[in-house]
Amino acid sequence: MPDILHRVGIKVPSKNVYEALTTVKGLAHWWITETKGNAKKGGNIDFGFSRMRVLETKPDRFVKWKCVGGPKEWLGTEITFQLIRKAGQTFVLFKHAGWKEPVVFMHHCSTKWAVFLLSLRDWLEKGEGRPSPYDIKIHVGD
Amino acid sequence: MPDILHRVGIKVPSKNVYEALTTVKGLAHWWITETKGNAKKGGNIDFGFSRMRVLETKPDRFVKWKCVGGPKEWLGTEITFQLIRKAGQTFVLFKHAGWKEPVVFMHHCSTKWAVFLLSLRDWLEKGEGRPSPYDIKIHVGD
Repeated sequence: MPDILHRVGIKVPSKNVYEALTTVKGLAHWWITETKGNAKKGGNIDFGFSRMRVLETKPDRFVKWKCVGGPKEWLGTEITFQLIRKAGQTFVLFKHAGWKEPVVFMHHCSTKWAVFLLSLRDWLEKGEGRPSPYDIKIHVGD
Repeated sequence: MPDILHRVGIKVPSKNVYEALTTVKGLAHWWITETKGNAKKGGNIDFGFSRMRVLETKPDRFVKWKCVGGPKEWLGTEITFQLIRKAGQTFVLFKHAGWKEPVVFMHHCSTKWAVFLLSLRDWLEKGEGRPSPYDIKIHVGD
């Protein structure tokens, strides 16, 4: 099954990145403004268009979600963020795994994830996140 | 074998996108400033860090390259751009296929391709491409 993969490097400590991934307030600053719920291990996060269960967390190192609501192509897929400290920055290795088919929507989501991971970087480095609905659009009507 | 997939929509006719993909001048405006060679079918394009052979072109619809020089992970991989006219824009369905393993470098390249496809969009819509070395950086030292 095809996966979406990405990597960005962020010039802040791993714990700052981890906090932006495991708190509703943090997630609202870079992905979806209207994020609600509980972003800790075992919690459910409501992103409006989708819901994630937090399957696993390792402080400052790893976060894993499972999609439990939202677009049918996302249901059951898993999203992981692996944090690696190296060369004066925190690398985020991102994977959105478990897509059944490489549909057009997967192409779209791959490009959007890149945009949002750069939003995460810009939020943490400069306080300039671009969460939805303020995100960079990738087509007319996005 | 895992693929890198992306999609952007560009508010210009398909022929403008096709031209930006099949001329050295066009490629230099959104991907690599120092592009040289021949970007027509059967030609070889020299991007400095890599070389591509143009395997197939269908005017205003399709472009396929094969990597014949560059990073070892890229050698033999194939890059396709499919152009689809829909909803007042030209969608670019992008695929970089044939990676042997989902290595860290593949994560990096996936995010960079998103950045460059948005550079293609911004070049064609606004005359504001960001080709390398003026590209958006995705980590410290990128």
